[in-house]
Amino acid sequence: MSQAPDRSTPPAIILVHPQLGQNIGMAARAMLNCGLGDLRLVKPRDGWPSESALAASASATRVISEARIFETTAAAVADLQQVYATTARSRSLSKRIVTPRLAAREIVTNNGSDIASGVMFGPEASGLENDDIALADTVLSVPVNPECPSLNLAQAVFAVGYEWFQALDETPPEIVSIPKETRPANKQELVGLFEHLERELDACGFLRVEERRPIMTRNLRNMFQRASMSEQEVRTFRGVIKHLVRGKPD
Amino acid sequence: MSQAPDRSTPPAIILVHPQLGQNIGMAARAMLNCGLGDLRLVKPRDGWPSESALAASASATRVISEARIFETTAAAVADLQQVYATTARSRSLSKRIVTPRLAAREIVTNNGSDIASGVMFGPEASGLENDDIALADTVLSVPVNPECPSLNLAQAVFAVGYEWFQALDETPPEIVSIPKETRPANKQELVGLFEHLERELDACGFLRVEERRPIMTRNLRNMFQRASMSEQEVRTFRGVIKHLVRGKPD
Repeated sequence: MSQAPDRSTPPAIILVHPQLGQNIGMAARAMLNCGLGDLRLVKPRDGWPSESALAASASATRVISEARIFETTAAAVADLQQVYATTARSRSLSKRIVTPRLAAREIVTNNGSDIASGVMFGPEASGLENDDIALADTVLSVPVNPECPSLNLAQAVFAVGYEWFQALDETPPEIVSIPKETRPANKQELVGLFEHLERELDACGFLRVEERRPIMTRNLRNMFQRASMSEQEVRTFRGVIKHLVRGKPD
Repeated sequence: MSQAPDRSTPPAIILVHPQLGQNIGMAARAMLNCGLGDLRLVKPRDGWPSESALAASASATRVISEARIFETTAAAVADLQQVYATTARSRSLSKRIVTPRLAAREIVTNNGSDIASGVMFGPEASGLENDDIALADTVLSVPVNPECPSLNLAQAVFAVGYEWFQALDETPPEIVSIPKETRPANKQELVGLFEHLERELDACGFLRVEERRPIMTRNLRNMFQRASMSEQEVRTFRGVIKHLVRGKPD
C-alpha cells in the first residue's frame, strides 16, 4: 500500500567518526527501509570497507557499497545547502532546535526549491562535537524518554528517515483489508443472516421471553454489524448456524 | 525539553518466538528510549535468560530482567483488551490495518477508558503466523520503502514506541536555544551594531556610491536580523569590526 516517495530528493545521511561497522550497516538498512540512499562517512574509526558493516546491512548492501568516505565533516557537507546536526537537546549552544517531524517537513518543502539537505550524526559514544554542529543550520533532536535518552545510532537514523518517509507517504492511516477472493457483505446478505439466526433462535426457545425479544435481536444485529463481515464470512456463518441446529455430523 | 508521558499506560510489547538475543536486547533499549517497560516473550528460540539480550540492551537492563516469558501467544495477551499485530501490509486477511501513528493515537485515547493495550511482533525471519494475528483486533503496518520493506525487529519496536511517545510528548517542534549566560539582543543593541558598522563602512569608502548606499545598508541590516543574534554576539561582532578597522594586533 505504501508508495515510494518521488517528489523529493532524500536527505544525505552523514555519520561523523562512526565507531562500529555493525552500526553503520544497521544504519544503512534503516536508510533503505526509508528510501534514503546517500550515505557519507567521515573517518570511520575501524577503517573502510568494513565486513561487519556489510554483514549488518542485510539487503542494503548497495547503500554500503556506494557510501562515500570523507576526511573532514566540512568536506562531507560541502555540496549541501541545508544541514541538520542530530544531538540530545541542550541549551549550551545558540541554535534553532527542531523535532525530526518538523525537519522532515522542512526538507520536503525545501526540496521543491532544489535545496540539497543532509543530516549529521556523531560517534556512538560521544555525539557530535561543537565544531561539527557549527557547520549545521539547525539542531535536530529526537524527543525520547529523558530517563533513557541515548539512542542507538541506527535508531536515530531510522527516526529521521521514518519521519521523512511519512512526510511524503500516502498510505491511508487506516484501511480495512478484504481478501481479493471476496467482498464486503451487502445489507441484504446481512439481513438474510440475521433472519436465519433469529428463526433458529425462535425455534430453540432462546428468544422465548416476548418483551425481551426486540432488545436481544437488536443487540445481536449490532454485534454482527460491528464485525464488518465479508460475503464469504456471512455464508460461512450461516453454515455454522445450520450445523449447530442439526447437532450431528453429516 | 521532553516530558515523560504520564497520562497513559504504555502498551505491552509482545515478541513472539524471537530468534536472536541481541535483537531482544536492542528492542528492550528501544522500548525504554520511548518510555515502554512491559516486555513479554513467547518462547524465545535461544532460551531465557539470555546473555546476548542483556548485553545489547545497553542501559535498559531492567526491561530485560523484568521481561515475562510465556508458552503461548494466547497466554501472553490474556490480560489485554486491545491487541495490535505488526505485519507487512497484506490483503490476504480480512482485518483492519492501521499505521503506527494512528495506533498510537488509539492507544492513548483508549487508555483514558482503562483499556490495556499491547503490540505483537513476529520472529525476525518469518513474521507473525496467521493464528497469532487472529488473536489481535487490528493489524499494524509500518509504512516503509516497498523496495526494502523488511525492518529489523528493534526498528519495528522503535517505530511503534516512537509514535506512542510522540503522541503524548509536548516537546515544541521548534525552539531557538540561547545559552543561559546570555539573552536575545534587543533592537537598540542591534541598531547600535548597524550604525557602528555603517560608520566604519562610510569611513573606509565601501558605501561611497551615494545612490547605492540605502540598498546596501538595508541588505546588511536584514542579513543581521536573520541571524537572531544574542546580546553577547552583538558585542563580539562589534569587537570584530573594531579590530578589522584597527588592522593590527593590540
